[in-house]
Amino acid sequence: MASNTVLQQIEDVYQEVIGWRRHLHQHPELSFQEYNTSQYVYDLLESFGGFELSRPTKTSVVARLKGAQPGKVIALRADMDALPIKEETALPFASINDGVMHACGHDGHTAMLLGAAKVLKDNRNDLSGEVVFIFQHAEELPPGGAQEMVAAGVLDGVDQVVGVHLFSTVPTGTIHIRYGAVTAASDVFEMTVQGKGGHASTPELTVDPLATGAQIVTGLNHIISRSVAPLEAGVVSVTKFTAGGEALNVIPDTVEIGGSVRTLSTDVRELVKSRIIDVAEGIAKANGAEVNVTYTYGYGSVMNDKEVTDQVVGVLEEHLSENKLEWVDPILGGEDFSAFSDELPACFVFIGAGNVEKGITYPHHHPKFDIDENAFMDGLKFHVFTALTLTKNK
Amino acid sequence: MASNTVLQQIEDVYQEVIGWRRHLHQHPELSFQEYNTSQYVYDLLESFGGFELSRPTKTSVVARLKGAQPGKVIALRADMDALPIKEETALPFASINDGVMHACGHDGHTAMLLGAAKVLKDNRNDLSGEVVFIFQHAEELPPGGAQEMVAAGVLDGVDQVVGVHLFSTVPTGTIHIRYGAVTAASDVFEMTVQGKGGHASTPELTVDPLATGAQIVTGLNHIISRSVAPLEAGVVSVTKFTAGGEALNVIPDTVEIGGSVRTLSTDVRELVKSRIIDVAEGIAKANGAEVNVTYTYGYGSVMNDKEVTDQVVGVLEEHLSENKLEWVDPILGGEDFSAFSDELPACFVFIGAGNVEKGITYPHHHPKFDIDENAFMDGLKFHVFTALTLTKNK
Amino acid sequence: MASNTVLQQIEDVYQEVIGWRRHLHQHPELSFQEYNTSQYVYDLLESFGGFELSRPTKTSVVARLKGAQPGKVIALRADMDALPIKEETALPFASINDGVMHACGHDGHTAMLLGAAKVLKDNRNDLSGEVVFIFQHAEELPPGGAQEMVAAGVLDGVDQVVGVHLFSTVPTGTIHIRYGAVTAASDVFEMTVQGKGGHASTPELTVDPLATGAQIVTGLNHIISRSVAPLEAGVVSVTKFTAGGEALNVIPDTVEIGGSVRTLSTDVRELVKSRIIDVAEGIAKANGAEVNVTYTYGYGSVMNDKEVTDQVVGVLEEHLSENKLEWVDPILGGEDFSAFSDELPACFVFIGAGNVEKGITYPHHHPKFDIDENAFMDGLKFHVFTALTLTKNK
Amino acid sequence: MASNTVLQQIEDVYQEVIGWRRHLHQHPELSFQEYNTSQYVYDLLESFGGFELSRPTKTSVVARLKGAQPGKVIALRADMDALPIKEETALPFASINDGVMHACGHDGHTAMLLGAAKVLKDNRNDLSGEVVFIFQHAEELPPGGAQEMVAAGVLDGVDQVVGVHLFSTVPTGTIHIRYGAVTAASDVFEMTVQGKGGHASTPELTVDPLATGAQIVTGLNHIISRSVAPLEAGVVSVTKFTAGGEALNVIPDTVEIGGSVRTLSTDVRELVKSRIIDVAEGIAKANGAEVNVTYTYGYGSVMNDKEVTDQVVGVLEEHLSENKLEWVDPILGGEDFSAFSDELPACFVFIGAGNVEKGITYPHHHPKFDIDENAFMDGLKFHVFTALTLTKNK
Repeated sequence: MASNTVLQQIEDVYQEVIGWRRHLHQHPELSFQEYNTSQYVYDLLESFGGFELSRPTKTSVVARLKGAQPGKVIALRADMDALPIKEETALPFASINDGVMHACGHDGHTAMLLGAAKVLKDNRNDLSGEVVFIFQHAEELPPGGAQEMVAAGVLDGVDQVVGVHLFSTVPTGTIHIRYGAVTAASDVFEMTVQGKGGHASTPELTVDPLATGAQIVTGLNHIISRSVAPLEAGVVSVTKFTAGGEALNVIPDTVEIGGSVRTLSTDVRELVKSRIIDVAEGIAKANGAEVNVTYTYGYGSVMNDKEVTDQVVGVLEEHLSENKLEWVDPILGGEDFSAFSDELPACFVFIGAGNVEKGITYPHHHPKFDIDENAFMDGLKFHVFTALTLTKNK
Repeated sequence: MASNTVLQQIEDVYQEVIGWRRHLHQHPELSFQEYNTSQYVYDLLESFGGFELSRPTKTSVVARLKGAQPGKVIALRADMDALPIKEETALPFASINDGVMHACGHDGHTAMLLGAAKVLKDNRNDLSGEVVFIFQHAEELPPGGAQEMVAAGVLDGVDQVVGVHLFSTVPTGTIHIRYGAVTAASDVFEMTVQGKGGHASTPELTVDPLATGAQIVTGLNHIISRSVAPLEAGVVSVTKFTAGGEALNVIPDTVEIGGSVRTLSTDVRELVKSRIIDVAEGIAKANGAEVNVTYTYGYGSVMNDKEVTDQVVGVLEEHLSENKLEWVDPILGGEDFSAFSDELPACFVFIGAGNVEKGITYPHHHPKFDIDENAFMDGLKFHVFTALTLTKNK
Repeated sequence: MASNTVLQQIEDVYQEVIGWRRHLHQHPELSFQEYNTSQYVYDLLESFGGFELSRPTKTSVVARLKGAQPGKVIALRADMDALPIKEETALPFASINDGVMHACGHDGHTAMLLGAAKVLKDNRNDLSGEVVFIFQHAEELPPGGAQEMVAAGVLDGVDQVVGVHLFSTVPTGTIHIRYGAVTAASDVFEMTVQGKGGHASTPELTVDPLATGAQIVTGLNHIISRSVAPLEAGVVSVTKFTAGGEALNVIPDTVEIGGSVRTLSTDVRELVKSRIIDVAEGIAKANGAEVNVTYTYGYGSVMNDKEVTDQVVGVLEEHLSENKLEWVDPILGGEDFSAFSDELPACFVFIGAGNVEKGITYPHHHPKFDIDENAFMDGLKFHVFTALTLTKNK
Repeated sequence: MASNTVLQQIEDVYQEVIGWRRHLHQHPELSFQEYNTSQYVYDLLESFGGFELSRPTKTSVVARLKGAQPGKVIALRADMDALPIKEETALPFASINDGVMHACGHDGHTAMLLGAAKVLKDNRNDLSGEVVFIFQHAEELPPGGAQEMVAAGVLDGVDQVVGVHLFSTVPTGTIHIRYGAVTAASDVFEMTVQGKGGHASTPELTVDPLATGAQIVTGLNHIISRSVAPLEAGVVSVTKFTAGGEALNVIPDTVEIGGSVRTLSTDVRELVKSRIIDVAEGIAKANGAEVNVTYTYGYGSVMNDKEVTDQVVGVLEEHLSENKLEWVDPILGGEDFSAFSDELPACFVFIGAGNVEKGITYPHHHPKFDIDENAFMDGLKFHVFTALTLTKNK
């Protein structure tokens, strides 16, 4: 079937996609609680027919579509969860679940992949290999749904995996891509500095955890500047420091310190973790205090495989040639697609969905966040042609 | 009248003093709320007869007793308020006001001064000048009751003022005294470091108030070691630092820092205040942040006048010669008797009221704090003979 | 003329290039003192004939070669100076100037450009536009020779400028290239913290510049981690701190602090400069001290123009196709070719000249540094075909 | 013999004392090099006759004078060494030894003790016990001469030891005294922070000793403010920090840090030493560096024994009653008389020798330092009557 026929089918499904997205937007559900959402997706896929459907976890859905010819097995992934944010848009389909909002575009991701599934099912005769549609839960809440789905075996037999994220701060029509690290590994640390409290007028009888903690913060702020190579991106931000407060004449017993770490390589990630612990322990020891550091790994870094990315670029140049393709730096945000790219050659792209004229300019996670539905055409084409093309590879 | 007659009268009133103290202990009232306490004192003084009674404030009492001969006007002061502490003693007269406790000995102070008033009234013919009995409210809660009483004119016409504090960590029988600064000026400071919050992964878009605040804490900890003379006592303790905490991926907008300052001279007090402000403002500026410092003066330093103290020492050597007199360093705690010593030549002494054998060893403000009632004899003699002696001076 | 004829001419001149390089290596001269070197270059160029020769500064040479057809004016640049390093190689043509050594490959740069000049002169009939051969002095010593040559007008009428650096830590056969910033802007700062000295036992009478300076160092180490975007490369290294030392009982009057700054964009460069000054001044003020900061701009960042770089990549793909082209990160070293790339669209590439089998592995500026002369073929081809190609552009 | 006869003898020797002092002033000798000085003292004592003379060390002298009656053995001590300071006074008897100066009054100490020896010898019949005149070398240069003399046995059989220091910043006529610690223990520390040097642009390959050292300095400046009781005097002053400096693009391998410590009690001295080591080691460890701390004990704290001091006060009140006796705080300077007060009950007093009208106002160790020779009368009386009185005790 010629691609302009496919294009016609994409245009045909486009209005449906908008409808599905608006339904999802109006009925957002928090991470790990996507019961209605996943049922909605499941029911739609079932209504399309032709898929082998499964529920790898309570709130996720996988649909497998076998092509007529032999070929590769390509997974396409959309995430479905919403955020604990009170929506402040004036959209007619604004959230009816108070304090829950699709403020990151996952409603669009899900609707676009549903649309692509419907189009691809109608083109099964031209399809090689197999397409695995992953409707993932819980992207927003570490440890994330992706790793659960991987553990449940959704990548078994899959050759390559492809994902997409709509981006409200990039104009519709522009697509961002890069090789290698796309997003950052995003970890957190917390520590308790254990001193010995006492009266403010007798510091000599105390071990002052606050003076110690302040020195630790200063030490932590040296890690990026002194221990990480200037050309390696990394962030250590101390974001929490709580100590005392009830009575100003009491030196507290303990101080709680916490923060966030972003890195783009495993080496730097491990280096930073190790430096955080050394800084905390060394400075605590210098002050006669003790410290207990907890370092919690969050999502890893999404890595774009060179070969898959080149194939995706080929798809973009052929089928989305009117879009502007920009090679960009990584972003330091986190994305649990990393659980997939850790397992298989992968490619993750950002599709612009911002529109200044429509007032769609708010950043992700903002109460007034929105996405330009025109971008759904790009996402539909991206999914459909990527699936048709990559499955054909030997 | 010979002093051994007076001594007999003191012994006679001693059991009454114990009774009054136990009543007060059982019915403690918080600072500025000493309604029943002050009425109890007022009623007792009225029952003694011979005093010119007044209520300078709602919860304080002043009794003036004119001597038969001309002489000096000497004020004796007792404080009457209790603390917001849940008593944990097993005393039969433990507090019946839940969460309120005489955990600093003010019950004893009040009872002793009542006893002294009764004895002195009975010796009016031998009394010169005038004795002003100050039953003060609200010593425990800055800005304190003493300054209110001064403002109300209780020191009008007074020549010298004398006070006493029972001390549970000094054995009964020992009296502590010194020239000059007896207690520390006790101030507090609070500051808000105003940065510009943002996401932990984009520190360059923020002004990090936490990094700034940590440097300020470190700077504040230099003040005593670098700006105050080693032979001058002073403390700057940073005791509060609160920042962020809700989400580890958010650099907060502001940080709240607070602490306590103790000094023994006006010069050092003003120096430390000025250094705190300079450190905070300089380091904030270095980081592109802003800071707003509030420095709150607490009680000043109680100052013992050389001449009055020498007179008091004379009284002690003559009338409490079996007691052990120790010349001691100042203590860094605060005491609002400073409002009196700021106005007039004064002397403030510490009377031991600890007793290991009786298990009376808990420090002041402890839920198990108690005082050795034997010490009341020392307090009674101290008040009575000080009044008789000092009023005689020309 | 066909490019394989040109290739034959390049092969013919190759042995001469080796001879020239060895002569230059044996007779190294320090920056701004390249009297014999520049005369040697001048004499050779004169011997080739056909160039319009000039001496823009005392120790530099420029040769202009006009093509037969109209076209662009392309400048090719080689640097000629050596370093104050005592050579420790066992080369038969090792330096005879004690303590001076070609330890950065400029001997090779000069010889290759001489060879290219000779070949291009022989192909003048096929040459369009004009080629300007820049034999630059003093690359190693800021403020550098490049800016002097620019000031002397050597870029007048030039359209584009191209440079090359041999790299001993990259194997022969590999070429490194990138868009945008290739090398870092390399600046230095120095500051004097002015306190008030005094005896170690009376800190209160001093303004301690050492305590202040230590806090400033700590503050400077926050600049990269807090004020520069994680994806922007930058370095602030404090490398000098001198204070006191004669007598341990004397708090010194002043402290001298200095360091090095590397940045890859003008915005970050100016930001870092401004932060250094703010940190120093703010923290000095916090401590009652004064500080005087001197920030000295060194070489700027060499910037590869997208269009010129694409043209150069075209040359490499066509004429050096057996070489391995690698797209690389910038390096944080400095290079005064920036004075040219500041003025005109430019491209600067790194040609591998390391050879493990030959033992050519020492880094630049090492006393045992050497370059693989095989790499000269790459450099010759690069210069000749770049000149022939880029001059042809309209 | 009546004390007014002794007084007459003191007045008689006074002019001689001035002469001796001026001779000594003109011929100053550095610590441990007092060859001519000690010979001069020895020859004078020999010329007086009646002493048992000895040379405990090469440049010290001890004279023993036995009284006619039994009694105590009292040592009187004077120090004799000068300082490496270029004299800038216009005195007719200014130093003729270039760069060496009696800038601390030891010339006066020696001359006064010589005078006292002469007077006491003439009063041997009235003298009880024995007087030991200690003419000590090397007070200015740790480890000091006093400990050498103690080791040589000069205190064998001695009961009490008394010393005096002239003070140019206290007016003639005033005498300073106190119980307990008179001067501070005065120690020094030095440390090498061992990092790993490298290029300023690759901090990640280094262990930055300068960043580490700056944090250590900050940590050391917390010791007094956080670990020493506010009412205990102590100083930790970091006075030396040397790192790098040759090339601003090189992170150095090591940093040298040094400073001075003053304390008034053994407990605080040991606490501070231990905190210095902990701070250095902890912060070095936090940064991956190593540190080697050397702590060198200097002179201990001169301690005035209560009983001896009371006896000395008795002498002052009886024989120097026209002088003003002031009870003072300790001074944080060092004095190696501590080697004597460590061994025996001792008393050390300060005799005012400043005179604003004569322009004698410069502090000790100043190139224009001088002493008011009128003060010699006080010193003579002090030595003579102390010896006569204290030897009489049982």
